[in-house]
Amino acid sequence: MEKKRDVLVVGGSAAGITAALTAKKFSKETSVTVVRREKEVLIPCGIPYIFKTIGDVKKNLIPDSVLLNSGIEIVLDEVVEINRGEKTVTLKSGDKIGYKNLILATGSNPIVPKIKGVDLEGIFTIKKDIGYLEGLMKALEKAKEIVIVGGGFIGVEIADELAKRGLKVSIVEMLPHCLQLAFDEEFCVLAENMLKNMNVNLVTNTLAEEFVGEGRVEKVRLSNGELLKTDLVIIAIGTIPNTELASRAGLKIGAQKGIWVDEYMKTVDENIFAAGDCAEKTSFFTKKPTALRLASIATMEARIAGANVFGLKRKNIGAIGCFSTIVGGLALGVAGLTENAAKSAGFNYVVGKASGPDRHPAAMPGCKELKVKLLFDKNTEKLIGGQVAGGVSVAEIVNMLTVMISRGFTAEEVATMQFGTHPALTCSPITYTVVVAAENALQQL
Amino acid sequence: MEKKRDVLVVGGSAAGITAALTAKKFSKETSVTVVRREKEVLIPCGIPYIFKTIGDVKKNLIPDSVLLNSGIEIVLDEVVEINRGEKTVTLKSGDKIGYKNLILATGSNPIVPKIKGVDLEGIFTIKKDIGYLEGLMKALEKAKEIVIVGGGFIGVEIADELAKRGLKVSIVEMLPHCLQLAFDEEFCVLAENMLKNMNVNLVTNTLAEEFVGEGRVEKVRLSNGELLKTDLVIIAIGTIPNTELASRAGLKIGAQKGIWVDEYMKTVDENIFAAGDCAEKTSFFTKKPTALRLASIATMEARIAGANVFGLKRKNIGAIGCFSTIVGGLALGVAGLTENAAKSAGFNYVVGKASGPDRHPAAMPGCKELKVKLLFDKNTEKLIGGQVAGGVSVAEIVNMLTVMISRGFTAEEVATMQFGTHPALTCSPITYTVVVAAENALQQL
Repeated sequence: MEKKRDVLVVGGSAAGITAALTAKKFSKETSVTVVRREKEVLIPCGIPYIFKTIGDVKKNLIPDSVLLNSGIEIVLDEVVEINRGEKTVTLKSGDKIGYKNLILATGSNPIVPKIKGVDLEGIFTIKKDIGYLEGLMKALEKAKEIVIVGGGFIGVEIADELAKRGLKVSIVEMLPHCLQLAFDEEFCVLAENMLKNMNVNLVTNTLAEEFVGEGRVEKVRLSNGELLKTDLVIIAIGTIPNTELASRAGLKIGAQKGIWVDEYMKTVDENIFAAGDCAEKTSFFTKKPTALRLASIATMEARIAGANVFGLKRKNIGAIGCFSTIVGGLALGVAGLTENAAKSAGFNYVVGKASGPDRHPAAMPGCKELKVKLLFDKNTEKLIGGQVAGGVSVAEIVNMLTVMISRGFTAEEVATMQFGTHPALTCSPITYTVVVAAENALQQL
Repeated sequence: MEKKRDVLVVGGSAAGITAALTAKKFSKETSVTVVRREKEVLIPCGIPYIFKTIGDVKKNLIPDSVLLNSGIEIVLDEVVEINRGEKTVTLKSGDKIGYKNLILATGSNPIVPKIKGVDLEGIFTIKKDIGYLEGLMKALEKAKEIVIVGGGFIGVEIADELAKRGLKVSIVEMLPHCLQLAFDEEFCVLAENMLKNMNVNLVTNTLAEEFVGEGRVEKVRLSNGELLKTDLVIIAIGTIPNTELASRAGLKIGAQKGIWVDEYMKTVDENIFAAGDCAEKTSFFTKKPTALRLASIATMEARIAGANVFGLKRKNIGAIGCFSTIVGGLALGVAGLTENAAKSAGFNYVVGKASGPDRHPAAMPGCKELKVKLLFDKNTEKLIGGQVAGGVSVAEIVNMLTVMISRGFTAEEVATMQFGTHPALTCSPITYTVVVAAENALQQL
């Protein structure tokens, strides 16, 4: 007779762990089991940093103690089938586990483009797989010239790391700028300038059309006719939700290829929830499907799903989208919509800008220029987006902007917001950059 | 015939500058004049850092260009009388200036306690006066042992600076802990431990009862009977609003000794506003007078006053209180109410706590332990306070908490908030400390 669990979670990365922890926090008596394939779990966002800063795949792990200390059971196996009628899952080992509620957190896989020669040796994607990444680390030891296909976050962060190792790095990006899906042009250029300072070769507006080599990749043929010599290729052009299991179980799949969920993170099945990269996301702004796949969104969704197995308590207001990165020592962050995103969503907006030293006086140590750009909806005057560049605090500044966006702060409300300042930690109270950017927008509203 | 100004601002520090800039932003045609006594203006919060980090009073100035570039006139003089009937002010020079609207930003003065021997040479307060502070800097050059009376922000920050100069520093604080008006005990202890590591001698629960010396201070007699040898004394026990001018003009003064203002920052006179340390503050939480005097609150009030001279556009929701500091490299910040403050305000509250590394994995460089404590009202489940200790981002984390407090985020809403994370910049998305602290509180609600 199979085991029966109150909450069964499929997948052991950010969303799976958080969903399990949340369910257990809500009720200690609830039996919670996480089924995952991986013997050890990688910190997904830490992967770019294994190449230099961390230096070792094994130093970028989420310890099992996080789950075990909370009394959550871990099963190392793979769910191969969901039997919705009898409320069980079948494992690869042949075992079955019963569930009252199932949470799918099966994540996403890197996209492998259908480019000629993509199967040559020396071509890698960024898989969340320790053995595979150790293979990539080993291959890197012998490489001098690297081509990264894709200038999004992962591509740019890996370029930053590999350039620090002294490697000759090229990024091939099909859009006019790196990071262009995340930032407006002027912020992309700030990041690109940092990369150029590190001698990264940026080939934008260009496609990788063929990987050339005898068994092993030696060159990348680009859409501009150029042939880029290379010892190794890393492809980082995005991810696709891992929904095979859900699909086979007859669960609905959304327009962005994620498992369809309602605002409670519930699938079409009353007893099956989904969270994280595998789940379809709805935009906070447009209420339409969006392709935002971030670990922070994954954990937020998991906190909703993990609570809602006990009754529909928590609601998802839709993904705002907030992320940050650091390139060549410059931190960049974004909350909500960029100008491009606002335009395609049909917003009529005004932009408020401000910049200034992030310490006061600027003679204080560690002072950096802080650059803030805010977007306000012209009709409602509400904050719909923010982009920030500067020192490490940028990440928490965009988090603050995300909180404001979630509550519809108007430009007036941002301009008169309350905040604290300190000479060694922030901008001056007179020039607190977020406030000054809002004042700047107000002059156009 | 005297000049007549649309907006006349009395005082040229944080509130005065911000009020003038705000008025000018609202209407470029408006004539705005700032009258101030000081030839040059100090950055008030930067003063503790002139002693070591900045090293020079003259590197801690707010340049006049901030005002002049916006077309604001500066008059170096002192307002000695407000003639409310004829809407003019009389200057020390004898000149008169007319106004349509007057904004008082006369600031505060350090409290000089009535302790025997307080007039001895070698005893200083922290006056916002360049010549005076240069005198203190000069006196410090010859000093080896220093006694600081008052373990609030200013006292602690100056102790941190002077200890870094290798001086033997004692802090005499009447409360059981340094920073106790700002933080709960466990956070005070974190700061105190940093000071102790720097060999600062903490004498808490103790009063300075007499300054002893022949012409010049040599010893401080304490309430515990001890005699502390010293070369120099700095008194930093708080400030008192500078309301003499307002008082003489018959304006109402509040219970906390500030100029009474309504939620629009308007005094009892239709055409006179007040902002900053000189103005009475109302607590966001209790709607009662509060003694919070911070540059960040001053500028928020000034942004309200500066706009409202054109009609009552902006409202003050009451001071939440948000500030941060750094002691021996540990940043500490607070938003809203501490446990002590919540108790005296009559709140029934629950506490949520969490701590963890502020990078992920913890092997990332610059990683510090981030400690978060949140207070939620037991009845409404709304966030009423937060205390945070860790790295430099602490200051923006408490700013984010302040935004949440201002909008009444419940523990559920904090627990399911949206945010971004990055390995080199923040906590992990699974353990984002603010969220985990909210989850912790939820288990008690």
